[in-house]
Amino acid sequence: MKSEADGRGGANPFALLSADGATRARRGRLTLPHGTVETPAFMPVGTAATIKAMLPRDVRETGAEMVLANTYHLAIQPGETLVERLGGLHRFMGFSGPILTDSGGFQVFSLPGREVSEEGVRFRYEVSGERVLLTPERSMEIQQALGADVAMVFDECIPFPAERSYAAASVERTIRWAERCLAAHARAGQHLFGIVQGGVYEDLRARCARALSALPFSGLAIGGVSVGEGLENLKKVVGFTEPHLPAPRVRYLMGVGLPEDILESIERGMDIFDCIIPTRFGRGGTLFTTRGRIRIDSRRFRRDAFPIDPSCDCHACAGFTRAYLHHLFQARELLGVMLASIHNLRFYQRLMAGARRAIEERNYSAWKEQFLGAYLSNARK
Amino acid sequence: MKSEADGRGGANPFALLSADGATRARRGRLTLPHGTVETPAFMPVGTAATIKAMLPRDVRETGAEMVLANTYHLAIQPGETLVERLGGLHRFMGFSGPILTDSGGFQVFSLPGREVSEEGVRFRYEVSGERVLLTPERSMEIQQALGADVAMVFDECIPFPAERSYAAASVERTIRWAERCLAAHARAGQHLFGIVQGGVYEDLRARCARALSALPFSGLAIGGVSVGEGLENLKKVVGFTEPHLPAPRVRYLMGVGLPEDILESIERGMDIFDCIIPTRFGRGGTLFTTRGRIRIDSRRFRRDAFPIDPSCDCHACAGFTRAYLHHLFQARELLGVMLASIHNLRFYQRLMAGARRAIEERNYSAWKEQFLGAYLSNARK
Repeated sequence: MKSEADGRGGANPFALLSADGATRARRGRLTLPHGTVETPAFMPVGTAATIKAMLPRDVRETGAEMVLANTYHLAIQPGETLVERLGGLHRFMGFSGPILTDSGGFQVFSLPGREVSEEGVRFRYEVSGERVLLTPERSMEIQQALGADVAMVFDECIPFPAERSYAAASVERTIRWAERCLAAHARAGQHLFGIVQGGVYEDLRARCARALSALPFSGLAIGGVSVGEGLENLKKVVGFTEPHLPAPRVRYLMGVGLPEDILESIERGMDIFDCIIPTRFGRGGTLFTTRGRIRIDSRRFRRDAFPIDPSCDCHACAGFTRAYLHHLFQARELLGVMLASIHNLRFYQRLMAGARRAIEERNYSAWKEQFLGAYLSNARK
Repeated sequence: MKSEADGRGGANPFALLSADGATRARRGRLTLPHGTVETPAFMPVGTAATIKAMLPRDVRETGAEMVLANTYHLAIQPGETLVERLGGLHRFMGFSGPILTDSGGFQVFSLPGREVSEEGVRFRYEVSGERVLLTPERSMEIQQALGADVAMVFDECIPFPAERSYAAASVERTIRWAERCLAAHARAGQHLFGIVQGGVYEDLRARCARALSALPFSGLAIGGVSVGEGLENLKKVVGFTEPHLPAPRVRYLMGVGLPEDILESIERGMDIFDCIIPTRFGRGGTLFTTRGRIRIDSRRFRRDAFPIDPSCDCHACAGFTRAYLHHLFQARELLGVMLASIHNLRFYQRLMAGARRAIEERNYSAWKEQFLGAYLSNARK
């Protein structure tokens, strides 16, 4: 196992600043071409080169240092060559901080009628019906054109549950695809992260983690644990995979998750996260508070003069009441989803800031218990 | 004719600062409980206590000093008593500057099945089907509870075209209703404006303007010229009504309009305006530029690296390309309507700032011709 990765972006972008000690939780810093990211970190998801219903400056104001954009969606609309011609993804979407693009794999493997071969995946675009072949090389081509700070390898994201024999063959293909991605990736200044697959099988996750750790990736991700398998499964898979990941490199748990998922994963040594939950829940009227989630469209908030979360410092909580948010959702006014998105993203960023502080104070486990005690009690104001 | 109105808010809130001289255009300042408004001024419309798709701070950033909210909509949802209990409309919607509420008349008179009597108007709420009677006294009650800086009298907004006999009877009722509004209005610090009706009939407009001018309103509005009657009719009605309005009081042309409508009306002595056009057009992808309107969803903007209007200083033009806006509209992303609304409102505010400067320089007519020459040429970049 190499102890230092140089990735494609040069030196290892990750610096380990401190460790909790009693748990595997780590405090670190990612130094990327467009800025630094304090870890543990949460990346809001900007699928179509926009964090839905938010101005980029409002995203920054929540404390988000890095965002994710989706290769699959951007390749369809507006197309990566146009984004490149317009100066790359940062300029296109008006976000000057670090950006990570996924590989397109996760979206492609959720399409019906996909055909997986050693070469890649054949599928039809959802909108146009056009038949497309997505390969490791093509994913690299798209991501290099988009020009994010971090690109992800094209992996096979297998369904849950998957047969052991299929998962084993898929892991070997994912490793071969990772090598093809490295061979195809040449963009200076852009980092490339590997993705560990292997389903729920400890030996397959270990095999994949060790094989990818031997390759010069700038960081390593754990994929395939995000989709509804539950917290116990997540703790198990992260728990038995993490020891096989090299400590000096950043660990990214993809597509996770709820606050409790993230806190348990930080405790198990994960550094960065992304998830649509805060923004998607916000648009649906579900708001995160330190006392649990609330549904702002519930009639019990009709006359409520408190902010969404009295302990929150976000723009929505600073200036608006639950009654106003309730009114906006009742009247189907877009300002409702705008304020809800701002609040939920700020909630996630405050959660991460709390985790970072607790690790620095070597007090992570107690802090987590205290937070989850209040949060999961679902006490209502 | 009284030369000074004391209204219900105390002294006349309007100060005439200068006049163009060659035209009737005026430069003034409204001093209201929540701040001052430089006139000529344009008020964005916040129907349901929100300027659609905009944070209040973004509305302020466009230069808007005063906004309008709709009595009819707010009485239905969330109800004026709730708004009052939560500290009034300013606190409720998070806008600390001056607010004007309309009377509800315009909405009510557009409902099918309405019944007009001397007492008021009977109608059914569109959503609940509840039968309601809206009277001058009830309109005052709602608007006083909402607590805007300016309330409007409850008038009859007659259809266009209307028979002369109906219009004549309606003007007399509107004058009687205006007197009832004054008698019912008691909120200290809230100004009350009268509304001149009379359709396209010069003598009826004159009769109404003179009758209302004799009453202690803080300002006078011209109503009933906003709905699709065309620019020539607007110029005619404003032109023959304005001489009957007392010069020291502010003149508000309701529901107007397109840039050319506003500029022609400023030339004819109007001071304040409101219209849904900039925000509604923006949500539909129609953007205002100094070279005319553009439809950002047109394919010709797909690869366009310019901002919406290269001469504009708004947040949308400062950071985003037409190609990005086009992409957002194609992908049906809310950020598209957010940026379009910001841009269009800034366009309107820059238009008003230009008009104010031209009046100060006693150069209004030439400035207007120059602006409309470029704007109406529809030249495209």
